[in-house]
Amino acid sequence: PDAAARAQAEARNDRLTKPPRSLGRLEDLALWLAEWQGTARPHVDHPQIAVFAGNHGVTARGVSAFPAEVTVQMVANFEAGGAAINQLARAAGARLTVHSLDLDRPTADFTQGPAMTEAECVAALAAGWDAVEAGSDLLVPGEMGIGNTTSAAALACALFGGDARDWVGRGTGVDEAGLARKAEAVEAGLRANPGARGDALEALRCLGGREIAAMAGAVAGARARRVPVILDGFICTAAAAVLERAVPGALDHAQAGHQSAEAAHRALLQRLELDPILTLGMRLGEGSGAAVAIAVARAAAACQSGMASFDEAGVTG
Amino acid sequence: PDAAARAQAEARNDRLTKPPRSLGRLEDLALWLAEWQGTARPHVDHPQIAVFAGNHGVTARGVSAFPAEVTVQMVANFEAGGAAINQLARAAGARLTVHSLDLDRPTADFTQGPAMTEAECVAALAAGWDAVEAGSDLLVPGEMGIGNTTSAAALACALFGGDARDWVGRGTGVDEAGLARKAEAVEAGLRANPGARGDALEALRCLGGREIAAMAGAVAGARARRVPVILDGFICTAAAAVLERAVPGALDHAQAGHQSAEAAHRALLQRLELDPILTLGMRLGEGSGAAVAIAVARAAAACQSGMASFDEAGVTG
Repeated sequence: PDAAARAQAEARNDRLTKPPRSLGRLEDLALWLAEWQGTARPHVDHPQIAVFAGNHGVTARGVSAFPAEVTVQMVANFEAGGAAINQLARAAGARLTVHSLDLDRPTADFTQGPAMTEAECVAALAAGWDAVEAGSDLLVPGEMGIGNTTSAAALACALFGGDARDWVGRGTGVDEAGLARKAEAVEAGLRANPGARGDALEALRCLGGREIAAMAGAVAGARARRVPVILDGFICTAAAAVLERAVPGALDHAQAGHQSAEAAHRALLQRLELDPILTLGMRLGEGSGAAVAIAVARAAAACQSGMASFDEAGVTG
Repeated sequence: PDAAARAQAEARNDRLTKPPRSLGRLEDLALWLAEWQGTARPHVDHPQIAVFAGNHGVTARGVSAFPAEVTVQMVANFEAGGAAINQLARAAGARLTVHSLDLDRPTADFTQGPAMTEAECVAALAAGWDAVEAGSDLLVPGEMGIGNTTSAAALACALFGGDARDWVGRGTGVDEAGLARKAEAVEAGLRANPGARGDALEALRCLGGREIAAMAGAVAGARARRVPVILDGFICTAAAAVLERAVPGALDHAQAGHQSAEAAHRALLQRLELDPILTLGMRLGEGSGAAVAIAVARAAAACQSGMASFDEAGVTG
């Protein structure tokens, strides 16, 4: 972060025509954007939503309410402009990029062994890193992958401990029996991959998926380019958590956009000390919750960068 | 509300390419927009933010951290484009209209008797009613008026009972002594205006202000034109509460945009059974919190109106 830009932004903020701190979280967001963008007048002019899609071998365990072919069908829907994230991107004035990751080659079923080889995991991380476009001034990573709440739950369990039951949820809408199958899959995954606990990148390889690794890569790639990131829901946050567990402070350039209705997301945000900007009961994935939060970040930047000072406006401060 | 349009909107929503209910509050907002706009495909293409400004005789009681001349200075700032609401309106793609209400004639000090005559109160209500522009598809009422958190606290106390201390807060930033003066002013106002308790419109006349009456008029005028409304913070909600207490159901076309950091706003929202869309710790007024919520309403409308159905997209539902 750019401490000088932050100090300049704070000094400017103190002179704007409003009672001190009266814009609340918007002021925090503006200063955060300022320190990562390196300017006292931050902007959200070119936000990018990068949606990554992958398929999961663990779907063989009956962990999703939807069949695995829905992943590729939804990618076609993204490309045709018919999905929620297309509408949310347009409403937010954001550029949407869609990245399919070997959809015809699902990861291995992690209840039997590692989901990915090292080469596969590195390739997915690199695809995410490379997806951040030059000129983007804010990044939202999103995902599509039938079965990926189970993968994210296994990853969270490996990273933070606790029982499988603590981390599984309804996902796209499984019933009680489906929820039990998800918990069993997470337990089996941790048994089958003993190296996953206590090694964040190994947990990603063994229990994650290509789109999850790609989101981690995108968050890291954004950091290298000083692009601030707004995280989406449970799966996106689990991907980002890999970075924080590997390198504490790795998420300082990230905010949580939305607290998902997926049960374990709140616990995951608390472990990462992230305070969600929005809580709208969404649980769709695709980057959808964070996409709505883009407008809040833009509002924050607009006030910080566009307001008059007390002196400029001739207002008694 | 248009029950047929709502039913059509619900049927459409059920077919869109997402797990049922996975857009959470966005789905509620879309259906609410649909029933008030009378269409299964609602829109937020022409939102209007109407900011009303008035001056308050009760400022003589030392209830604000800012001098009364700041009201007219801030109106000049609105007109020059330098205030927070100017930036937020632009970021939200909203039209901002500014309505000064006899700024050179403050209301009477309500600790001594009624703040307004009947003619003054009716004129302010009518100014609000008339401010809703033809073609607006969403309305945010906002306000500027040094001293008006004290007026709103007195109004809330008359409408809902309780002690003055329950309804006063820091406003633009008064200290403990200022807070005590606010509570004393509210108590004195209720003593000096015994007709205010139990008669919502009389409470508005005796304890309100011109901009508060105008916001109530604008909310009612929007209802007559079937324009959905997003309410702002404590003062705006107190104005709207007058309508609900006078005619139960009068706020069915309104949502709460933002829960203010002003202490009593949460209690006021609870009395009105309103669930705020956002909680960002803002406490500025001007319509600022609700202005940020416009983007959430637009996101809701965009998903409802733009998404493909499972059949259209060829996705297995």
